[in-house]
Parts: sequence; structure tokens; C-alpha cells
Amino acid sequence: MTSHFRHVALIGKYQYAVSGSGAAGSRQVLEDIAQFLLTQGCDVSMEEHTAATAEMTQYEALDADAIGTQCDLGLVVGGDGTMLSIGRRLARYGTPLIGINQGRLGFVTDIPLENYQATLTPMLHGEYEEDHRPLMHARVVREGHTVFDAFAMNDVVVNRGATSGMVELRVEVDGHFVANQRADGLIIASPTGSTAYALSAGGPMMHPSIPGWVLVPIAPHTLSNRPIVLADIAEIAIELVSGRDASANFDMQSLASLLHGDRILVRRSEYCVRFLHPRGWNYFDTLRKKLRWNEGGS
Amino acid sequence: MTSHFRHVALIGKYQYAVSGSGAAGSRQVLEDIAQFLLTQGCDVSMEEHTAATAEMTQYEALDADAIGTQCDLGLVVGGDGTMLSIGRRLARYGTPLIGINQGRLGFVTDIPLENYQATLTPMLHGEYEEDHRPLMHARVVREGHTVFDAFAMNDVVVNRGATSGMVELRVEVDGHFVANQRADGLIIASPTGSTAYALSAGGPMMHPSIPGWVLVPIAPHTLSNRPIVLADIAEIAIELVSGRDASANFDMQSLASLLHGDRILVRRSEYCVRFLHPRGWNYFDTLRKKLRWNEGGS
Amino acid sequence: MTSHFRHVALIGKYQYAVSGSGAAGSRQVLEDIAQFLLTQGCDVSMEEHTAATAEMTQYEALDADAIGTQCDLGLVVGGDGTMLSIGRRLARYGTPLIGINQGRLGFVTDIPLENYQATLTPMLHGEYEEDHRPLMHARVVREGHTVFDAFAMNDVVVNRGATSGMVELRVEVDGHFVANQRADGLIIASPTGSTAYALSAGGPMMHPSIPGWVLVPIAPHTLSNRPIVLADIAEIAIELVSGRDASANFDMQSLASLLHGDRILVRRSEYCVRFLHPRGWNYFDTLRKKLRWNEGGS
Amino acid sequence: MTSHFRHVALIGKYQYAVSGSGAAGSRQVLEDIAQFLLTQGCDVSMEEHTAATAEMTQYEALDADAIGTQCDLGLVVGGDGTMLSIGRRLARYGTPLIGINQGRLGFVTDIPLENYQATLTPMLHGEYEEDHRPLMHARVVREGHTVFDAFAMNDVVVNRGATSGMVELRVEVDGHFVANQRADGLIIASPTGSTAYALSAGGPMMHPSIPGWVLVPIAPHTLSNRPIVLADIAEIAIELVSGRDASANFDMQSLASLLHGDRILVRRSEYCVRFLHPRGWNYFDTLRKKLRWNEGGS
Repeated sequence: MTSHFRHVALIGKYQYAVSGSGAAGSRQVLEDIAQFLLTQGCDVSMEEHTAATAEMTQYEALDADAIGTQCDLGLVVGGDGTMLSIGRRLARYGTPLIGINQGRLGFVTDIPLENYQATLTPMLHGEYEEDHRPLMHARVVREGHTVFDAFAMNDVVVNRGATSGMVELRVEVDGHFVANQRADGLIIASPTGSTAYALSAGGPMMHPSIPGWVLVPIAPHTLSNRPIVLADIAEIAIELVSGRDASANFDMQSLASLLHGDRILVRRSEYCVRFLHPRGWNYFDTLRKKLRWNEGGS
Repeated sequence: MTSHFRHVALIGKYQYAVSGSGAAGSRQVLEDIAQFLLTQGCDVSMEEHTAATAEMTQYEALDADAIGTQCDLGLVVGGDGTMLSIGRRLARYGTPLIGINQGRLGFVTDIPLENYQATLTPMLHGEYEEDHRPLMHARVVREGHTVFDAFAMNDVVVNRGATSGMVELRVEVDGHFVANQRADGLIIASPTGSTAYALSAGGPMMHPSIPGWVLVPIAPHTLSNRPIVLADIAEIAIELVSGRDASANFDMQSLASLLHGDRILVRRSEYCVRFLHPRGWNYFDTLRKKLRWNEGGS
Repeated sequence: MTSHFRHVALIGKYQYAVSGSGAAGSRQVLEDIAQFLLTQGCDVSMEEHTAATAEMTQYEALDADAIGTQCDLGLVVGGDGTMLSIGRRLARYGTPLIGINQGRLGFVTDIPLENYQATLTPMLHGEYEEDHRPLMHARVVREGHTVFDAFAMNDVVVNRGATSGMVELRVEVDGHFVANQRADGLIIASPTGSTAYALSAGGPMMHPSIPGWVLVPIAPHTLSNRPIVLADIAEIAIELVSGRDASANFDMQSLASLLHGDRILVRRSEYCVRFLHPRGWNYFDTLRKKLRWNEGGS
Repeated sequence: MTSHFRHVALIGKYQYAVSGSGAAGSRQVLEDIAQFLLTQGCDVSMEEHTAATAEMTQYEALDADAIGTQCDLGLVVGGDGTMLSIGRRLARYGTPLIGINQGRLGFVTDIPLENYQATLTPMLHGEYEEDHRPLMHARVVREGHTVFDAFAMNDVVVNRGATSGMVELRVEVDGHFVANQRADGLIIASPTGSTAYALSAGGPMMHPSIPGWVLVPIAPHTLSNRPIVLADIAEIAIELVSGRDASANFDMQSLASLLHGDRILVRRSEYCVRFLHPRGWNYFDTLRKKLRWNEGGS
């Protein structure tokens, strides 16, 4: 019996250089998984930075675009950050992703490394739950020109400089004025991002099936500036009215030194990210484990 | 030129008896509006309790079902409570509603009484914005039987008795276990209800176009039991696990003395409530006024 | 070497009848501890309800007042609830208390049952940290007469009936008007109570050395009605302005069916409760364990 | 009848250059008030930057230290920021301060400009309420040396760089470990500062008589990292464990580019700031007005 996915790309924690015994441990893990995939009848390639970091040369090294066009599956070994990063880049190709976490459970990297074979085997043969996550497309427009432009899976954040007090931000939805908010900043989070920074800033969690973003002010001056859930078909605009050294951050991809009048525009991308989970996976189970509900603490 | 709406029902604050000069003032207002509608070429009927309270006998008195089958428009003169109450009862007939507020601006009764003619005239001739609000259908199931059953526009609330400490509630979504929560209670709010009780308890606002409910725990024992936005196509179940004197409240329609094992089930109704607003109406304008954003307070 | 405390009273979870094997287990624990105290040279008495519940007749049974006048130490075996209950009753006598928890760590019952001898031995010989907690004296005044009157260690709560909507409460501090608040209720918590119900309702934690109470509204209608820390030398008055079936709860000692105009008055009692902790005890260690900080969850 | 205060210093909004008609308007106001003080029998000096900004040369210009040693009263015409700034500098001299607000009511500048004479006249003759506010003394210690050092009336804030994600901060109180917190930052606010930034970040209000600081995390990763009120006799230490571009801000006096291992230490200063208010002034009245309680908004 052959795999449902002919060609699989292995993607590790390539963003941060791993050195010494950590690198060796990581390489061993990737090597094991690659061997397992071969026994399952898959062709195996390596994401190019992963291959370089792990110093693995026996597999074809591909960049993200090549993975998107050539591979049937991306297998991420790392944390949520790695998964979101490659997810943004593969979204346009529709390549599905499976996430194996090496340390602690992630919201989207939900397969523990330990005994991963038992979980992966049925998935490789087509037994999985599919979970589509919307992608935000955000850009900074300055004097009519787009000066910064990126996808975000978690959130688009506009925030103040470190030593410079509040920013004032004008919020519009589909061209309609909502409010001027004075705050440390504003977060526009997707359902995926609603359990990340936005939750820390007081936002609600949102089930991934909700076609909306949540706009969460960070330490707002006006106490009634509370989080608001907006339809993701709307275009949200945030204009910097006042404040020095403000920055725009799209999943931590940053443009610093915003100018007054700069407009950050957020739309739903035409692409989704496709995550695959083991059969029986349920969002609420992950939520309950991550937030440690029902563990009896105070 | 004749009205777009041939037969209009006038609905006042019938729920609470109004006496003395208040009643007289209210009658005068209703009388004025009725005369105005006649001049616009409409037939005018009165909701039966409104007619009785205001002691107005010159117009045909209709109950809610008769309004639903015979009238083309309900014109509510009162507050949001009146609007929600008649909205629940007319939803199955699809009768549209316009709300005139007598005192302060409501979230859904957004036309000030003062100078109402200028606002209503174009609306009666078809110039309006239509705004559909989902309706919750909730019931209490005890040992397999539905013992209480109602529509709610704002929220479904399960809460504890006055002197009896926390309740423990088991939450399920589409049959899937979410969490056991110990709290004063739980609110399931629609977008319409998200600016009411749920907001006081720490929930987010939700734009009316969001097809979701927000589940908001009231004073939860576990600090990570935060509000969560759920798809409104799901069935939410709340089961009373422990706690004395708990009650279920569907837009304030109450069933007291819940028993352990009672399940409160919430589904989206097949009906919507149709509100009409003046041309140019926008949800964010109402929000901004009601929450007094950008007024310069601390 | 003899104990620093000549006569020790043992106090168990007497409030709730314990039956079957639970009772037997509880009796065995109390019997062990009593024997240990005898070997340490202490006289041992039993709180009367504990003796009755555990069916232990070989030790002198004393009521709370007799413990206060005759004993040098109360040794509580149970949870925080038991500790607070006996603490309120012994405060006027200044009897110090040590708390052994049978299940999970409490905020004030901080000695685990397992291996309790090693912890208690130095404490019985005078090696301990002393921790004084202020006590609230609260009463309900109706038409000039006190109709309910009790001590509270955690909190004084005024809240609404189960099915009756918000209450409106007028708050005064030392006779000075603070605000009318519409909410589910109001909590006035001591530092000890600040980590209990008040924390769930959005209040801050307060170190036990803070001479203040925190006033925390429960689901307040006005979003700027935020928690406020008040000096404990002030008299706080809460008057029921409107709302049906409201109740006053002083550490869960309740007066139901408050009337409009009833005033709940809170003052600091002249008494403190004296808790003893093992040498090296620190409030922040307990807080960190109870709230599971630094455990790596999300 | 002569003034209770022989020599009065006038202090304007000197921090920000005021130009054009604004400067002229400001000069006229200061000139009026100076004339009024002369008629009350006071000697009048001008704070030196105020004199320079307003281009007023007919009064003696004094720096803050000279005001502290020579004047009996500082009369501030501006907002809370001006009042806090001069308050920090005069604290060591015990010079009392009166605040006139030019625009909207401040928390501490509580006398409206309009008709100020009627309010000031009795105050100048000794009819006032005195209100002492504690002052924080904060410093940054790097490798054993103090590298930054200032007073703060509102708050001491440690926060992250604009584009650099969370900081990790180790909190100690009197040398005792409290917690490692990952967050956007931490605020330590005085009662005066509790209604400023700390309130926006979710902290409680604290009555000025509370001898405590409130530690408020900004967007904390761990949801149970809630605000905590600490005794102001304790020394609070915050150590930067990780995070780039973090800064320390003492009432907006900033030290940028903190290094890992830097410790921010906060103690109560031996000095207080003395504010004078009109007879009958009460803190709760100001709070109610500033937060617009009981105005009937949603």
C-alpha cells in the first residue's frame, strides 16, 4: 500500500540556527522521519534552510516555491512558529501541512514526536481531518503607494515605540469610520491568532470556522474600546494619526518607523492554509490541553 | 405617492404598565405617529397590549400573530427591550421592524422621536438599509424531554442561585466536550446580545454579520476560561453538573430551579429578525455613539 | 523539650458530614495527628463537631469559645474553607492557627498532610512565621436596625437574584457618595479574599500586608466601573437601590431577600486572625504554586 | 487680610513650546493669575521655563530648586502632566501645589480656569484640603552600578521594543522571587498612577491613602499573571531576563536599550508630593467625573 502523498517535504526549525548537540539531535530526528517516509513509499525532499542547518545532503533540497509546485505534503517538525511561517509561503500552492512538535504541544503542531509513526501511518494513507485556516493579506500604504506587503496567519499588529507613549490610530471598516483609538497598539487577529498575542491583550478565542478577525486594542486609553469581531470579507484600515516610532508587524514581519498618515490595510487572502490532523482531532481538545482547563488549579 | 408598506402595526412599551402622565404622554406620541402614518397612506393597527395600555380604541388591535400575518411593517416606539420582544414573536412571519426610541438611543431603536417624520418618510417609501439578525432557539431538556423552550435575540444565560455559590457547567459543541466550567454562570450571546450582558461580563462585541455566538463565562474560577466565539451552525449544550437554584434565562424568559443533569441546548433558529434603518445607517456609528467613543473622557 | 503550645485543639472538616470510608479515613488522620501532638507534650482537645463527625470520644470536645479561652493553638486539618470558618470564630481570642491540607494546597492551609510531622515539629517549638489577616465586620441595616451581622475573612458580597436582572447599588465610603453601580453584584474583598471570588470577577490580588479592601463589581453595566482598592479604616456602605431577590453574603453566610433601602455596612474588625506558617514561608511562593505561574502552559 | 502663602510661584505648560496665538492666550492667562495673586497680597515669581515660553519678564524667574527654597506655594496652570513634573522636583522641599486646568478636568489639576478667583481666594487664606501623594524612587542597576535614577509619581514601566516580541521579566519583592513574567511589559503604579496607564492595562484604581503600588503586566502571556497590589515599604526588583530593545520609563523619563541582567529597583521615596484642593474636595468626586460614572451611557 502506497502513501496518499507521493512526494513529501520535510521542514524543520530552520529560522533559528541550531548548533552543537541541539543540531545533532535535530538532524537525527529529521533523519528518522525521512527514513520512515521512505518506508511508507514516499519520495522525500528537504526544505533548503532545514537541509543547510541540519547539514543533511542526501535529500533533494527545495525552496518553498519548489515545495509548493512539486510536493504533495509538507511535514513540519518544530513549533507553531515554523508551521505558520511555511504555511504562509505554501498557501498559494494549496500544499497541505502536518505538524510534529518536538517539545510541547502547539495549537497547530499537534502530533507528539514520541511514537509519531503510529499517528502518521494512517494519515499518510488518507485518514485525516482537514482544517483550513484563512490567511490575512496586509500592506502598508504611504502616500498612495504600498511600501510593505505580507501575508499573516496569526495577526497584524500596529504598535507604539518603546519609549514614546500611546499612538492614536484611526480605524475604518470598508471605508466607514469606526473610531479613533489611543492605545499601546491594535491587534487584528485571525481565529488562528486569537489564541496567541490577542488573547494576552484581552481578546476572545475564535473557533477556526468563524469567518472573522478580532480587533483587540492593547492597553486602550478609553475603557469602552473593547475587542470587536469583524467579518473577514471587510477591508480593515488602520491609520497612524499620532505617535512616534510606531511599527507594523505582520506575524512578526515588521516595518518600523511608520509615518503619520500611513495606512495599514488588511484583507482576507484568496488563499487558505491547509492543516491536516489525525482522524478524530478536534479543536476543543487542543484548546483544553493548551489552556489546561479542568486541571484543578485555582 | 403611497407607502411601500400598506399596513403598519404600532407597537409601544406594552410590557410595563405605564400610568398617570406617563401614559398620557405615551398615548399622545402614539396618536401622533398613527396620524402621520395615515397621512402617508398606510393602514394603521395597534399591538393589542399597546392599545390596552394606552387606552386607544380607534385603531384595530392585533395580537402578534395577527400582526405577522396581516401587517407589512411593525413600528416600535420604545427601547431595545420592546424591539427584541416583538422581534422574537414576528420572526417567523418575516415582518420588518423600525424602531423609534423615546428616551436615549438604543442599539436597535435608532430613530430619535424628535423629528421622526423626516426620517420615516423616505423609509416608508422604500429608502432604507435592511439588517437581519439571527435568532437563537434554546430549550431545556430534562431526562430526555424538553421542559422549556423559547427564542432569544440577545442571549441564553445559565446562572447560579443568589446565595448558593458557583455552578459547575459542562459545555459541549456538536456533541464534543469543550470544558467543565465553574463560574457564576455562562452567557451565550448573539451579535445583537454581544453589546448587552455579555459585554459587561468581559465578552467582545461582534458585528451583526458574524455567523457566530460568543460564549462568555461570568466570574469563572479558572482564569483561562475566556470568552470564545463559536459558529452559529453548531449546537451548543450546557449541562448543569452541580450547583443549587440555578436558572436558565432566554432573553430574560426564565426557568428557575434547574436540576442536575438538565441540558440547555442552543441552536440557530431558521428565522431571522428584520430591522430596517434609515438609508446611510451603519452599525459602527451606533456603536460609537452608544459607547461614547471619541468623547474625550478618561 | 516541650511544645511552645501547651494545649492544642484539633479541628477537622466538620461543616460537611463525612460518611463511610471517607469518615474512617478522616478519623484515622485526626487520630494520627492527635497522637503526634501527645508525643510532642501537648494536651489535645477536639473541636466538638469534628469529634462528633469523626466519632472520636477519647479527647475532650470543646466548642469554639472554649477553644478560644482554653487552647494555645488550633490545628486545622482540611481546606481553606474550614480554616476561614474557625478563624472567624477564634479571632476575638487571638488563638493562632496552623493549617494542614488533606487534598490540594490551599492559600492558607499550606502544610501537606504527607510528612506533616517534619514540618510541625519545629513549629510546635516556636519556629514559625506569623501572618495576621484582617477581619471584616459586616452588617445589614434596615430602617435603622441591624438585621444581620457577621464577620468575614474573604469577602462581603451583595448580589442579584437568579432570574431577576441587574441590581442597582449605591456605594458610599465614610459617608461620601462614590457611585451608583448597576451590575450582577458587588464584592468587597480582603487581601485574603482577593485571590478567591474577587479574582474571578476581575479584581487584583492584594498582599496580606495591604490595609485595604478591594471593591469589585460583578459584570458591571458601565465599563469604567472597575475594581477599586479602598483603605480598610474607611466604612463602606452599599445600599440596594433597585433589584429583586438580592442577597448579602458574608463569607457565604447569607441574608436573602434584601429590601430596597437596605444598607450593607463594612468595617475592619478590631480583631485579626493569626495564621502560623513554617519558618521560611513566603506569600509569593504560595501564590506562584496556586496560580501555577512558570509552569510553561499557554 | 493677607494670604496664607507669602510667595507664590506660577508654573505653566513649559514642557512643550507653545507658539503663535496659543502662546499669547497662555501668556494672558498667566498674567491674569499673577495680577490676581498680587491683589491677594502675594509675591509672585515665575518658573523659569514658563517665563521663557510665555515671554514674561516682569516677574522674577526661578528654577525648580529656587522655587522649593524660596516659595510657599506652587500654582500650576496646565494639565496633570505639568503638575506631576513639577511635583517630582519640589517634593524634597515640601512645597505645596495647587492645580488649575486649562482644558479638561485633571485627576490632580482640579480647579477650572473659569472663575478660578472664587475658588482660589479661600484657599490662599488657608481654607483647603491637603492631599499627600507618595513618590517612587526608581533606578536601573547594571552590573552593580546605578546607571539611571529618577523619581516617579505615576509609574515605573519596563517594556519591550516596538518590533521585538515579548520580554521576560523576573520579579522580586524584598529579595524574594515572585515570578518570571513574559509580557509586553510591566507597570508599577502608585495610587496616583493607578488611574493612568495601569488602568488601561487592566489594573485596579487605588485610593491615594493606600500605602501600596500595583504591579500590572501588559498583555501577559500567562493568563493568571494578574495585577497584584504590593506594600510600598517593600523594594520591588524587575530584572530583564530576555528580550531586545526593552526600556525603562519612570513617568516617561526613559532609559532605552536595557541589557539582559539589568535590574530596575523601585522604593518609596522619603518625600511626598503635597497637593492642595478646595475645601470639600473628595477623591471620589473627581473619579466619578473623570470616569463619567452615572451619566447613563451604555
